[in-house]
Amino acid sequence: MDLNSDMGESFAAWKMGDDAAMLDLVSSANIACGFHAGDPAGMLATLRLAAERGVAVGAHPGYRDLAGFGRRAMDVSPVDLTADVIYQIGALDALARSAGTRVSYIKPHGSLYNSIAQGGAQAEAVIAAICAYDPALPLMGLAGSRVLAQARAAGLSVIAEAFADRGYRADGQLLSRREPGAVLHDPEAVAQRMVRLVREGVIRAADGRDVAIEADSICVHGDSPGAVAMARRIRALFDAEGIALSPAAGTIGG
Amino acid sequence: MDLNSDMGESFAAWKMGDDAAMLDLVSSANIACGFHAGDPAGMLATLRLAAERGVAVGAHPGYRDLAGFGRRAMDVSPVDLTADVIYQIGALDALARSAGTRVSYIKPHGSLYNSIAQGGAQAEAVIAAICAYDPALPLMGLAGSRVLAQARAAGLSVIAEAFADRGYRADGQLLSRREPGAVLHDPEAVAQRMVRLVREGVIRAADGRDVAIEADSICVHGDSPGAVAMARRIRALFDAEGIALSPAAGTIGG
Amino acid sequence: MDLNSDMGESFAAWKMGDDAAMLDLVSSANIACGFHAGDPAGMLATLRLAAERGVAVGAHPGYRDLAGFGRRAMDVSPVDLTADVIYQIGALDALARSAGTRVSYIKPHGSLYNSIAQGGAQAEAVIAAICAYDPALPLMGLAGSRVLAQARAAGLSVIAEAFADRGYRADGQLLSRREPGAVLHDPEAVAQRMVRLVREGVIRAADGRDVAIEADSICVHGDSPGAVAMARRIRALFDAEGIALSPAAGTIGG
Amino acid sequence: MDLNSDMGESFAAWKMGDDAAMLDLVSSANIACGFHAGDPAGMLATLRLAAERGVAVGAHPGYRDLAGFGRRAMDVSPVDLTADVIYQIGALDALARSAGTRVSYIKPHGSLYNSIAQGGAQAEAVIAAICAYDPALPLMGLAGSRVLAQARAAGLSVIAEAFADRGYRADGQLLSRREPGAVLHDPEAVAQRMVRLVREGVIRAADGRDVAIEADSICVHGDSPGAVAMARRIRALFDAEGIALSPAAGTIGG
Repeated sequence: MDLNSDMGESFAAWKMGDDAAMLDLVSSANIACGFHAGDPAGMLATLRLAAERGVAVGAHPGYRDLAGFGRRAMDVSPVDLTADVIYQIGALDALARSAGTRVSYIKPHGSLYNSIAQGGAQAEAVIAAICAYDPALPLMGLAGSRVLAQARAAGLSVIAEAFADRGYRADGQLLSRREPGAVLHDPEAVAQRMVRLVREGVIRAADGRDVAIEADSICVHGDSPGAVAMARRIRALFDAEGIALSPAAGTIGG
Repeated sequence: MDLNSDMGESFAAWKMGDDAAMLDLVSSANIACGFHAGDPAGMLATLRLAAERGVAVGAHPGYRDLAGFGRRAMDVSPVDLTADVIYQIGALDALARSAGTRVSYIKPHGSLYNSIAQGGAQAEAVIAAICAYDPALPLMGLAGSRVLAQARAAGLSVIAEAFADRGYRADGQLLSRREPGAVLHDPEAVAQRMVRLVREGVIRAADGRDVAIEADSICVHGDSPGAVAMARRIRALFDAEGIALSPAAGTIGG
Repeated sequence: MDLNSDMGESFAAWKMGDDAAMLDLVSSANIACGFHAGDPAGMLATLRLAAERGVAVGAHPGYRDLAGFGRRAMDVSPVDLTADVIYQIGALDALARSAGTRVSYIKPHGSLYNSIAQGGAQAEAVIAAICAYDPALPLMGLAGSRVLAQARAAGLSVIAEAFADRGYRADGQLLSRREPGAVLHDPEAVAQRMVRLVREGVIRAADGRDVAIEADSICVHGDSPGAVAMARRIRALFDAEGIALSPAAGTIGG
Repeated sequence: MDLNSDMGESFAAWKMGDDAAMLDLVSSANIACGFHAGDPAGMLATLRLAAERGVAVGAHPGYRDLAGFGRRAMDVSPVDLTADVIYQIGALDALARSAGTRVSYIKPHGSLYNSIAQGGAQAEAVIAAICAYDPALPLMGLAGSRVLAQARAAGLSVIAEAFADRGYRADGQLLSRREPGAVLHDPEAVAQRMVRLVREGVIRAADGRDVAIEADSICVHGDSPGAVAMARRIRALFDAEGIALSPAAGTIGG
């Protein structure tokens, strides 16, 4: 199984997350590319840490919206979006190579991630960017989402991910953040959930039913002290259960 | 001989220069990388035009200063500058590859160009960025400037350039823009000057003496109607004189 | 009648529109505030020209999206949007006072203009910003749109505007830009239309019927040579017909 | 005596400092204006806290350099700088009024602060901005620096400040950050130093001599847990010694 987390999201004098701590826990690092977060020197520092630890590096491109951290929906035209994503992947990959590693998959960020999950023109634009940059790079996206099918149809390999700390509906969709139980806070319960996902391929939905989730990777958050503790608990339980970690991009698209 | 010009400097709704016209005249295009000018979709459009015409593409990185168009001196630390330049080269090169071409040399922009001409820590930072990205890429800089010697010492090849429309001092330095004669406006006189540079390796300095300039490339401006006319006249005279154009990066570092 | 036009939309080295020419033609200038366009020195220069000519100044706030020129829909939260709009109005008004004038009305820009025309939370956020800054400032918006009713309900005065070069539907809405006839290009026909609007309060809709439009101001574009020519023709015909221009903000909310 | 501290320096998703804690300790808050730090909604939140506590509000304008946090020297032209500073003051003052307070003084930030301390064209540009916006607003700057004399000559009142945690030379200048003893870390020693400054008007310089400093305000830092603790110790000792706090702008320029 693969554990992935967002990183490199500091900007200038502002720090976010504890990349060094998270890089000891995960097998894949989604690194911000400068449009929603990340400045080149900070991205490079995180890339060096990832390279030292053998953690796989993914590009984490977002909307050009520093002031909204890429979390606001934006009606970017497909032509602009494709170029924006190529730009971000290329910039990160250049820094990655200078740190002794390479970008091995693409995971869009925040509002862009959510927008393309539904498929549509922005999804096509992101897929076109990956095809243009390097069609051997897999796209990481929400397990069961339309964009993964679109990407496969375009010839890309994909990495389906589940979210460790999110509640699921019985149809396999994430609970909206406006609903109770959308975000889970108990590290032990979350870790047990993820072990069950690995062992049985199911997650207990909010209504008590089991839902089958085919996930190649599990996303853990790292931008708060509580999030690091949760990631640590998941990793510890995986280690105890003999669940080995390896980058999804290495086995699928790498 | 090589003719180079700055391009891709439009941004969002704002247009600058006539890239299509200039790409019919020059052999090398220095393309903005998004920090002082250039948005990804516009950069990509210019790159496609360059690829169609077989014009060589150079990265034209600048300070992160859209509001100042990269023309203001900035005390950027070497660590930040190296990462900023790798980021910009990588972003442009990714777009270039998706347009069917590649970055084949690096020419810093504006205030960064002037700052590193003197040598020093920023020059080392730019050289380190090129070495990290691809040490086979030559650095284009002012003929006779310190940064070219520094780059050679670091193992890079270099492209020395002369400015078609600038006045020179007898020591081979450019006249300051504050001095009379710093900028030349007569296309015919400028074209004749450049023919003489190619044939004899000299430029007439402001004091009337000839100064030897070893130039691999000649920079022409393209951001005004008058500038395009001047470039057209130089190109026409070169054609008439049988001076063939070819990218400097192709022969030196490509 | 009032003629208004967008101005101050240059940014850094990039020029847009001919503010000096337009300021000789209109009675109200909507000046960009730095989020979608406009840098402080350029805004100040345009404000000085407006003050010299006695043209009323309106704040023209937009989404924080330089790369999209404020033309892309953005899901900005009401709390952020209110603060963003207060910030922009205050910044422009400070520059206006230093130029010897004042902001006398508010007209949102581009995608923000379109979004709030429908009413809703972003409309309330913009209204809240005006109320917080100065409830004596009128809001300029599309004649017949919901936001004007919302603004009146909140105690603001409003300026309803018609668009000189846009086609209308029989229900008084603008034709979508995707439909034929959405944008009119014949200066003479447009000028005649606007005279009829002033004299009779009607505009001929696309289906040939007359539609009543209650407009306090007419918007003319100024960002292209053709647009300036059209504004000039409208102004000339108004002068010939004895239709006097005066700022809407002066009579309604000023 | 006045205690001042920099605030409002969070940006978007990135937090900096504990404004609520610092606002319980100081009498004047220097609030970022969006160019080096600060987004409008965050600035407004800090302004409301300041208004509730009766803490005076100063504008803290900086260079337009988010990526460098306004700490990098920039060769901004005086014309641009004056407009940039008016813009920032006006934006903050608009938010301040909507929070029930007003900007009552101006303290430039970071590299701009250091640049103008020496006097010169940038200092004149900042002074011109204050005169244009409101010549009743005092300029806060380094005690003994040239800019204060320039400001007085231009008719502005000034607030001279000392730095609580910085070492001084015998000539009253700050020790360079490259020298040992440039930054002091012991809260008790710093608090005692500041009591002595208030009581006797002197600070012990690095060479052991006392140097007379005429300070109207003392700057304490707030952007780290240690900094808040130091500010708390200074405030506690001032309270114990019967040194009352009141905003310098209220007594001098307010």
